[in-house]
Amino acid sequence: MKKALYISILLLASLTTPVLAQEGPIFPKGKKSPNVHHVGNVWLTELNAPDSVFAYGTSVAIFDPGARLDWHSHPGGQILIITEGIGYYQEKGKPKQIVKRGEVVKCQPGVEHWHGATPESGVTYIATSPSQKGKTIWLHKVTDEEYKK
Amino acid sequence: MKKALYISILLLASLTTPVLAQEGPIFPKGKKSPNVHHVGNVWLTELNAPDSVFAYGTSVAIFDPGARLDWHSHPGGQILIITEGIGYYQEKGKPKQIVKRGEVVKCQPGVEHWHGATPESGVTYIATSPSQKGKTIWLHKVTDEEYKK
Repeated sequence: MKKALYISILLLASLTTPVLAQEGPIFPKGKKSPNVHHVGNVWLTELNAPDSVFAYGTSVAIFDPGARLDWHSHPGGQILIITEGIGYYQEKGKPKQIVKRGEVVKCQPGVEHWHGATPESGVTYIATSPSQKGKTIWLHKVTDEEYKK
Repeated sequence: MKKALYISILLLASLTTPVLAQEGPIFPKGKKSPNVHHVGNVWLTELNAPDSVFAYGTSVAIFDPGARLDWHSHPGGQILIITEGIGYYQEKGKPKQIVKRGEVVKCQPGVEHWHGATPESGVTYIATSPSQKGKTIWLHKVTDEEYKK
């Protein structure tokens, strides 16, 4: 009986391993961001810095469950491509949205908003940010009431 | 003995399913691209079209094993973010490179190059392309010799 069990475990391990080998996080966690404009754990990796050819920066942001950025706006807007997990995205005066792996969020210039992970799931996104109109404008913290509502 | 086998299969299935549920392709396959500027199967999904706010387009390209684009160049350059699989990238006069999940390739404006999947593995990437200097300039097919070398 033990033999049958071992064989079935080996068989299933061999069937699932090739799938798992290509899975897991796409990007390394990168540099843990100091808690200046967010609460919780956030890691950032820059994929390309804006320059004279590419007038936008591209970064990967990885949020642990419960982590969220402060309210902010982008003078040039920003596009978020969710690559893992489940997060929140909220624009001022609108209800909080749930955003998931494979979804794309376009933040228009000057729109006050915040985004982050849900309490139960982390979230990872690739952000592209036009650079020519200036850097992120940071506002105030997301309150617990706003986060949990 | 059969019971032990069933139990072990159920146990392993329950252990591996939560991992697999968040895995698999991030993006749907999108629209199969007609074979005008490539050989093999390539699917394209536009994540954002360039406009007056975002002066770059973002697309997902999914290549079956063996699929590759023709030689081409981008007047405004292009950045590729490999999100799945293993592919090739080659610039004119340079050796063919292997590119893998998590890697980023920056193609400078006007540089003749091609990219695609390897014969054994498909590849998926997110491409961002500055739009203001014009569209892709298509050149000639990648020969079997160039592809296999």
